[in-house]
Amino acid sequence: MTVHATAPLADLLHKLRPEDVTAAQAVAEREAELTKPAGSLGRLEELTAWLASWQGRAAPRLDRVRVAVFAGNHGVAARGVSAFPASVTEQMVLNFERGGAAVCQLAKLAGAELHVCALDLEQPTGDITREPALDAAAFADAVAVGNAVVADDLDLLAIGEMGIANTTVAAAVAAKLLGGSGSDWVGRGTGVDDDGLARKAAAVDAALARHTEVTEPLDVLRCLGGKELVAMAAAVAAARARGIPVLVDGFVATAAVLALERHAAGALEHCRLAHLSAETGHRRLAEAMALRPLLALDMRLGEASGAALAIQLVRASLACHHGMATFAEAAVDQRNV
Amino acid sequence: MTVHATAPLADLLHKLRPEDVTAAQAVAEREAELTKPAGSLGRLEELTAWLASWQGRAAPRLDRVRVAVFAGNHGVAARGVSAFPASVTEQMVLNFERGGAAVCQLAKLAGAELHVCALDLEQPTGDITREPALDAAAFADAVAVGNAVVADDLDLLAIGEMGIANTTVAAAVAAKLLGGSGSDWVGRGTGVDDDGLARKAAAVDAALARHTEVTEPLDVLRCLGGKELVAMAAAVAAARARGIPVLVDGFVATAAVLALERHAAGALEHCRLAHLSAETGHRRLAEAMALRPLLALDMRLGEASGAALAIQLVRASLACHHGMATFAEAAVDQRNV
Repeated sequence: MTVHATAPLADLLHKLRPEDVTAAQAVAEREAELTKPAGSLGRLEELTAWLASWQGRAAPRLDRVRVAVFAGNHGVAARGVSAFPASVTEQMVLNFERGGAAVCQLAKLAGAELHVCALDLEQPTGDITREPALDAAAFADAVAVGNAVVADDLDLLAIGEMGIANTTVAAAVAAKLLGGSGSDWVGRGTGVDDDGLARKAAAVDAALARHTEVTEPLDVLRCLGGKELVAMAAAVAAARARGIPVLVDGFVATAAVLALERHAAGALEHCRLAHLSAETGHRRLAEAMALRPLLALDMRLGEASGAALAIQLVRASLACHHGMATFAEAAVDQRNV
Repeated sequence: MTVHATAPLADLLHKLRPEDVTAAQAVAEREAELTKPAGSLGRLEELTAWLASWQGRAAPRLDRVRVAVFAGNHGVAARGVSAFPASVTEQMVLNFERGGAAVCQLAKLAGAELHVCALDLEQPTGDITREPALDAAAFADAVAVGNAVVADDLDLLAIGEMGIANTTVAAAVAAKLLGGSGSDWVGRGTGVDDDGLARKAAAVDAALARHTEVTEPLDVLRCLGGKELVAMAAAVAAARARGIPVLVDGFVATAAVLALERHAAGALEHCRLAHLSAETGHRRLAEAMALRPLLALDMRLGEASGAALAIQLVRASLACHHGMATFAEAAVDQRNV
């Protein structure tokens, strides 16, 4: 039953596409000829090699970049775990579609198309303190949405989410997969007060107690997660199969893809963590997963805002790689000795 | 004599323009109405307030952004402190002008004009281990170049440098103003080996021993610094007077502006540190100056590369501030109670 319920996602991870070592090598060779001291562009150089490795192109490109924001509602919201009412999820989806949200500005600035996926918002997930978040059918639906976002011709995908109460379910997933109790993983999310924070921790502890029998990582995502978490995980898995590198946004997105890594080691090699969120649990999560964020700007918005911002770093890396002159072209002397 | 020699720079700092508190307040009021949890854009929100404060505009703008790269040559280069020959400074200036360098790509991507100032490259500064780097006339010339770069109608200025051997003089300035010896402040720069690193430390120690009588911070810049350091300091001082916020690039630029802060406390309030360089001394320098970098991407190129990259963060902050919908416009519910 468990295997059956998460099969649509497990199938996407069945055989992990390997990186293209030859493409990365070609990038490294050109990098060494460009007019700068070796390695002096630091992580920008690393980003170019990463693009090449996973696009499988010696000359990587960023012609088509998509920011995908997945929105879901959560039964556990009824437990007073958010500073905002659940109605805000749907209202923000409209705001995304009308161009009024932060991610709309950030995606536009980054030259990326914004794709918003509302996951059956009128039907919140089950309250994780009492029941599985998703049954097999709802899980499959969320996987299909995540999978469908990953057009074959994307050169880069940035993923993020929106969903009142979803930092609570993300904390539950992290606690279940990495250990610790609710208070180790919950933060203030959209801005809960001390009482709200205590309710979040209690909700996570109750969910852990309710689902002691759940251990398989993808089933953890099904039982303690939510639709947008499943959809993000599915998008990341689909992107791997299609040769598309992925920028992962903050706390909730990282918790979602943690399940992939725990299910199949190496499943996140084509991903980079875009931004270290100010949400309490994110640093711990990133460290446990050995993910080093590209940015750390004290943001805690979700919406793929950090991932959209990081697209500009990837564009910068590629602009330097393709646009710079070589030592020979510029007639610049090489190093002494 | 000392006062006379550095008067052109001291004059620019004579009266520090204060920030515009009213403009910052107007920004904070709009920020609170935008469709996001309060403070959830973190440092992006801080950047918008910073722009407003120093531009003196309730609606800050980024219509005209300039990246200024100052290039100088150094007498101390003859002491084998760089992995590259001194001829590279001029060759790289040509590369900047022809669009082949990293900063050319980064400035273009950030929508900024690139302004390259070669500071009398055929006349290197004095060898700081034996004499002052600059006499009064050369100091005044460098100040004039820095001052001239700051057009009145700039909305943002990003400063950086290029100059074979200039991480050595920057280390000397930092050591002189903050204490410590050569080995505390030198790093591998463009990539010196262990012997080169030892020569850098020895050169700094020799410079400190030669200039024990020099204590006034601007005179430290004159005697232990270099033309591009003086020009950067002058540009920062001129920008303050003209209501132009400044992004400061890596190790050498930070050492240059340190002298301003030591000369006149608060002189850097209109500046932000763009990027934490991988060059060894930069973290120590940034911490001593309580400057928190916007980016930390292991870059160590100079050329204003980090500052050019950070322009995109400032553009992102402004795009969100001006482009986002308010709660009222988007009909999004405010927080519970």
